[in-house]
Order: sequence, then C-alpha cells, then structure tokens
Amino acid sequence: MPHFADRLGEFIRARGNPLCVGLDPRWDSLPAELRARHDPGRRAAAFEEFCGRVLDIVAPIAAVVKPQSAFFESCGPEGMAVLLRLIRKARALGLLTILDGKRGDIATTAAAYAEAAFDCYGADALTINPYLGRDAVEPFLATARRHDAGVFVLVRTSNPGAGLFQDLVVSSPDQALPLYQHVGLAVARWARENLGKCGLGDVGAVIGATYPAELQLLRQRLPEVLFLLPGFGAQGGTAEDVRAAFRSDGSGAVVSSSRGVLFPFRPEARDWESRIEMAARQAAEALAAVQQKP
Amino acid sequence: MPHFADRLGEFIRARGNPLCVGLDPRWDSLPAELRARHDPGRRAAAFEEFCGRVLDIVAPIAAVVKPQSAFFESCGPEGMAVLLRLIRKARALGLLTILDGKRGDIATTAAAYAEAAFDCYGADALTINPYLGRDAVEPFLATARRHDAGVFVLVRTSNPGAGLFQDLVVSSPDQALPLYQHVGLAVARWARENLGKCGLGDVGAVIGATYPAELQLLRQRLPEVLFLLPGFGAQGGTAEDVRAAFRSDGSGAVVSSSRGVLFPFRPEARDWESRIEMAARQAAEALAAVQQKP
Repeated sequence: MPHFADRLGEFIRARGNPLCVGLDPRWDSLPAELRARHDPGRRAAAFEEFCGRVLDIVAPIAAVVKPQSAFFESCGPEGMAVLLRLIRKARALGLLTILDGKRGDIATTAAAYAEAAFDCYGADALTINPYLGRDAVEPFLATARRHDAGVFVLVRTSNPGAGLFQDLVVSSPDQALPLYQHVGLAVARWARENLGKCGLGDVGAVIGATYPAELQLLRQRLPEVLFLLPGFGAQGGTAEDVRAAFRSDGSGAVVSSSRGVLFPFRPEARDWESRIEMAARQAAEALAAVQQKP
Repeated sequence: MPHFADRLGEFIRARGNPLCVGLDPRWDSLPAELRARHDPGRRAAAFEEFCGRVLDIVAPIAAVVKPQSAFFESCGPEGMAVLLRLIRKARALGLLTILDGKRGDIATTAAAYAEAAFDCYGADALTINPYLGRDAVEPFLATARRHDAGVFVLVRTSNPGAGLFQDLVVSSPDQALPLYQHVGLAVARWARENLGKCGLGDVGAVIGATYPAELQLLRQRLPEVLFLLPGFGAQGGTAEDVRAAFRSDGSGAVVSSSRGVLFPFRPEARDWESRIEMAARQAAEALAAVQQKP
C-alpha cells in the first residue's frame, strides 16, 4: 500500500475537500423515529443503523471518517462488534478511517493497542496520547508502519480546559516554549523518520480547530507534519480559523466535524437524512474554499 | 457503597498487604499446555482460561487486580466479552478491580469512557491520562463518584522514556517544577474534593515503582492522594523502592505486579499454577514487610 500521507492526500484530492466526518453517536441525539425502533438497553444496534446511514450519505462527499471509540465502548462488547462492522463498511465505501481512541501506553501494551486498531479493527490511522513519552509512541509507529497506516498524536486539543497542562511554559537551555509546542517538535522528529512522496510524514498532530493563532505557528514550525483538526463546526471552529493549517499546495490537513454533520436536526425531524447530506456538503464546500489550491 | 478509598483500604487490610495483580495476558508467555488447547486465531478464549485460573489462585492472597484493557482489545469484540466476564469473576471472588485503560478525552466523550468502565464493565476504578486537561478529568470524576468508584491519573509512569515530557521543567511565577509534579498537584486538588473517612481522596495518582526518590517527594506533597504503583517486580521496582509510598499507618498505596506474578515460569513448565501462587505470596509478603503498620 502507498505511504499513509500519500494515500490521505489522494483521497482528499479525489473528493476536492479535506472534510473528515466524526462518528460520535449519542443516543439522545438520534432521530426519534430510529430510536423508536430500538431497545434503549441495546444502543449498539441503533448506533449501527444510524452510523451506517451516515456513511452511505457522506461517502460521496467526504474522504475520511473518524469513529469515536468511546461511544462504541460504552455499549460493551456488542458496541465493539458494531465499530468493527462500521469500519469495514467505511472502507468498502472508499472512505479512509481514523479511529479516535487517544490511546497511550508503553512497550508491548502500546503494541497491543496498535494491533487492536490496525490488525483487528482495520483502521487506517489511530489517535494517540503523548504523555507517557518516547517509548509510548514508538510501538504505535512501528506497528502502524507495518500496515502503512498513520498515527495522530495529541498536541493541542480543542477543549476549553486544554491549557491546564498543554500551555505550561517549559524552560530549556535554549528557549522557553509551551508544552504543546515541545510535543509538536517531537512529533516533527518522528514524522521525518518516514516521509511520503508528498513530503509529509506518517505521524500527524491533533490540533484543535478552535486555536487559529497556534495553528498558524505550528504549520510554520512543523512543515512535514499532517494536522488533524477536530472542533470544526459545533465546537466553534470556522473554515477561516483553519485556513492557516494547509500548506501552500492545499495539502497537510484534514478537518473533522462531528456533531455539526451528524446532528443538524432535532430528534423529531423526519428529514434527518437530507439534513445530514446538506450539512456535509456545506462543511465540505466551506473547507474547500479555504484550502489553498496550487 | 462506601467511598472508594475506604473500600480499597478495607480490602488491603483484610488481606494484610497492598499487592495488586496486573492481568496482562500475552499469548507467547502462556503455558504451552494451555496454548495447545486453543486456536491461535482465537486468543481471547485462552486469555479467559488463563486469567480465570490466575484469579482463583490470587484471590486469597491479593486484594486488587488490574486488567490491562489493551490485551483484551487486541482480540476484538470477543476479547471485550472476556474482559467483562473476568471483571465479574474477580468481583465475585472478593477482589477489587482497577481497569487499566489510560483513557483520556473531553466532555461527553470522556463521560462515555467512564460509563464503559463503570456501568458496562463494572470496574471499581479506571486509570486515566491527564494530557487533555481539566475538562478531560472532570467527567471521569463525576461518573466515578456516582458509582463510588475511583480514578487513577497518570502522573509519573514507570517506563524508561517517560521523562520526554513528564520531566520537562515548567516555570510558573512562584516555582519551577517538573511537569509530573504539576500534574500531581492538580490530582491533589481533585482528591480533596471528596475525601473518604480514611482521609484519602477518590482520585489517585499512577507513579512508577521504579522512581523511589520521586515517590518519597510525592508522598510528602500529596498526603491525601492514593498511589497506584506499577512497575514492581519484572520492571525493576523492589519492595524497598516503594516503602516511601505508604503513609505512616500503612495506607495510601497499592502496588502492582504483572509479569512477575503472571509469568514466573517458562511456557513448557507443568507446574505453572503453583509457581503463580508462590510468586504472588512472595510479592505480597515483601510488600507487607515495607508497608509500615500503626
């Protein structure tokens, strides 16, 4: 298989936009008519029906989907079986899949998480957490590289309380930088170990779409790093906010919207499918407009 | 149910030692005779048989077990069904369970992970990762508190590469401290929100048993924080190394051994069950000897 960054670039070029649709199913937000057909004690089946329809609707529009592991895990083993089938369905529909698990552990434990994501669930990429350090990232990279898959390391997350640790200023002999920039520089070193033809590495950075100034700075400092930008849409990030994330040829970033595309309707709405399609098209167009073209 | 810290203290007093047995099943390390009865393509069944026997063997000796989620996840949905049954079995045997998932996410996603751990899998506590900040910890606490469960936040992990970010020195107006101590002080603030009768909070800190000097310092600075200490045994931490983790009444810490108790035999050994029992008894006795009594 081609290098992950080349594959992602090709998928994005084919659709003409860098939209990633987050699959974060929430029982209370599901269409009422769909919920009525399911037992609240067995939410996994409702999540499968809803997310399956979302995949059908967004596949012609978006290049990437990002299932959020937590919501499937909260349904127990049955939820994981649904996650597995949804990833298979997404791939069959020609979508690239980023499993959002934010995993982090060391040595053979990290390798087991990576095997779960890439061997067992068949994701094209996985989000991981850097806090445990070097030997908590390397086993993920080694396993991902055997699969020509990618990993995205949390650098600057989109939540209001992210700064508690990420913004702490770290003093080193040569310069004082916030922690998230130290993590970003480490990601750049890992990315340079294995660059694709496009010049981007197979290790990316998760950076909230809600921080345009940080985005611009990180794009300058990490030219070889793919960015995954959550927080677009319902969390407050606009297309203008993510403009700085793209390289001059329009590559380098994938922008994720979850609630904004999944739930642009009240549960009682009968036309929820056409509303999802409209929300996905609007997000895709807004992002295509700020993704600089060559 | 009583407060998590009181419950943990009672379990530890009843067994007379603070040993936690980590359930980290690895296919290659399993007894050969057990492996021979299982299909390598369906490892979950072998993990269930092995860990089930381990639970029977250690239940009269140790107070706590810590299943490592990664190894069960790497077996797919079937592995999660095994994890669920093992947690139920552990509880039925009178063991307290810490699910080692090192989860971290924000808002409703964090709440979904917490629901998975406490509602769905029935764990008594969960390990979490602090990198995402305040609003990535609080939903775990809120859900845990509804269940009188506990959370253990990663502070200083036991791996050789942990220092890459955890040891970075952070400057603030009043003092310069390594990042892990900043995280530790945040854990202390969360712990003080809900203290048990024993004076310890329901939010603990994960601190590698391989760093005795850091342990001593953290015990002084975080008197109300429960410590979960992995890395005892095979990873190099000795009983002497963890002595400083206990409060003067012997409470305040639970010490985890995984490989040292699970795999004190070569795969060909026929007497693996008695070797596990012996390893668990030796670990328990060594820890009881350094756990200061009133």
